[in-house]
Amino acid sequence: MQNNEQLLQAFENYLAQTEFPAEPELLYAPIGYSLAGGGKRLRPMLLMLACGIFSDDTQRALPAAAAVEVFHNFTLLHDDIMDNAAVRRGKPSVFAKWGQNVAILSGDAMLICAYRLLSAIPPQLLPQVLATFNTMALEVCEGQQYDMDFENKPKVSVVEYMHMIELKTSVLLAGAVVIGATLGGASEEDCRKLRRFAIELGLAFQLQDDLLDSYGDERLGKAIGGDILEGKKTYLMITAMSHADEPTREVLRSTYRKQGISDQEKIDTVKAIYDSLDIPRLTEQQISLRFERALAILDTLSVGAERTKGMRDYAAGLMGRKH
Amino acid sequence: MQNNEQLLQAFENYLAQTEFPAEPELLYAPIGYSLAGGGKRLRPMLLMLACGIFSDDTQRALPAAAAVEVFHNFTLLHDDIMDNAAVRRGKPSVFAKWGQNVAILSGDAMLICAYRLLSAIPPQLLPQVLATFNTMALEVCEGQQYDMDFENKPKVSVVEYMHMIELKTSVLLAGAVVIGATLGGASEEDCRKLRRFAIELGLAFQLQDDLLDSYGDERLGKAIGGDILEGKKTYLMITAMSHADEPTREVLRSTYRKQGISDQEKIDTVKAIYDSLDIPRLTEQQISLRFERALAILDTLSVGAERTKGMRDYAAGLMGRKH
Repeated sequence: MQNNEQLLQAFENYLAQTEFPAEPELLYAPIGYSLAGGGKRLRPMLLMLACGIFSDDTQRALPAAAAVEVFHNFTLLHDDIMDNAAVRRGKPSVFAKWGQNVAILSGDAMLICAYRLLSAIPPQLLPQVLATFNTMALEVCEGQQYDMDFENKPKVSVVEYMHMIELKTSVLLAGAVVIGATLGGASEEDCRKLRRFAIELGLAFQLQDDLLDSYGDERLGKAIGGDILEGKKTYLMITAMSHADEPTREVLRSTYRKQGISDQEKIDTVKAIYDSLDIPRLTEQQISLRFERALAILDTLSVGAERTKGMRDYAAGLMGRKH
Repeated sequence: MQNNEQLLQAFENYLAQTEFPAEPELLYAPIGYSLAGGGKRLRPMLLMLACGIFSDDTQRALPAAAAVEVFHNFTLLHDDIMDNAAVRRGKPSVFAKWGQNVAILSGDAMLICAYRLLSAIPPQLLPQVLATFNTMALEVCEGQQYDMDFENKPKVSVVEYMHMIELKTSVLLAGAVVIGATLGGASEEDCRKLRRFAIELGLAFQLQDDLLDSYGDERLGKAIGGDILEGKKTYLMITAMSHADEPTREVLRSTYRKQGISDQEKIDTVKAIYDSLDIPRLTEQQISLRFERALAILDTLSVGAERTKGMRDYAAGLMGRKH
């Protein structure tokens, strides 16, 4: 069996040798640019690790791993148009570099390329994997739509927010592990359990992302406080809104678009409210709860504990935690 | 066996009972709106007719027929953003009605829905049909990219133009007939022949579309001369450019953006040049050549002539021709 470092290297090699046509250049160059942009390769890693729980042959998972990574990058490409985002992983987004039309069309081509990679999996598993992939892909679109809906919605509840990030983030991780497990020969029951594992892990991951945006971590290439300055409805903001009194809520609602104060003052104002309402600790609690739940599910699989060690280590590393 | 009218009705019924989720509304409402907008249902009809050549059971082709129609409507949805088109089939485009972000994301969801419909086909045929569909879908994107590239390209040759419309239009018709024939149990050789049939038919169809835009036909809901007013590089324009002397070429290049003359004068100026260069007749010749070639290919299939009658009638009706 390969360790996690070797697994990642095998994936990078596979992706690098995946060929895309050269012409028309404006259709295909953004795909190579986008895939070469790095990122954690979280989704393909989860897919291969899930396969590795049930089979020593993780090679067979490479095409599907590439499919989920290409799909993920497709969503980023189109999200960046919708969010008007000029930067992605410290480089100009495809949208900023080539313009909107190229970003739309090469994104479309990327989604099709994801399906083309899927078509390389063993025929007897194809119907099941394709169905999992389709449901996953559609739910990710639903999540993005809810995320955009929330921007114009005056009040978003914690339950609505958790549902949105489950669709926008967790579902893709869940699809990846279920596809990986299926390719590894897992039973339906183990697939269902791994799905729950990934849903919980994805929620922990997204909440941590929300927390780090305001409270920082050098691992992120983002400026601290970006969410606050955009007035984004994050877990922190939504939880604070649900705990605060009305005058404080009004401050939370309006600070980001206030004239005549600096960005740093805006960030300090909102974070002072978060601190007074104990939001960082509440968020940490929620992250730990989700993360522990995820790990506990791994123990219930029909395999020995040694088979889940790679997944466990990877999840802990992802969350910057020991286990 | 069903006649063509019954086939169309069976398709409309199938499409109408295909369910899409209700929520989030901004993701799914545009899909229903787009599919209810009508159109000729050219691609699903070709798919079912191709299936019908080899099998009396055309029912089995319905999910794939719906997949190609949903795919086609997905391309329209995204093309309308890229072309900034406010009207589609006499109604506001999704882009005009709901805005760009909704059009991008619901288009994405539509593409995924096309794959979801495909996943309903018999498992033993799925790998082959999926591969055909993927290649087709990617080539359609290539065609759209070349079409956009041509807008900024000073000189486009007739060969380049034919290659572009083969990708943008013919390839989708070819994918539809190959998938239909595969589902009907056709041999590989018959599939290859039907592919050529559809490529030729698609070229005839696109050139006729170019001709009718300038020389009219009430069947089209378009204003006459739209292509001329947009300065679009159509078969007529490109052929005229290749036949004209330099001063005339300059008139062809510049008329559409000339100030101080009416739209009708612009149209009259360009059409007078087309007429003087015999462009309508040259285009008609090319259309007839392609159409006759297409029909001739049908005669070479490994089935009796009575089995291709439905396809023959349909193609003739499409082109407004006798055969």
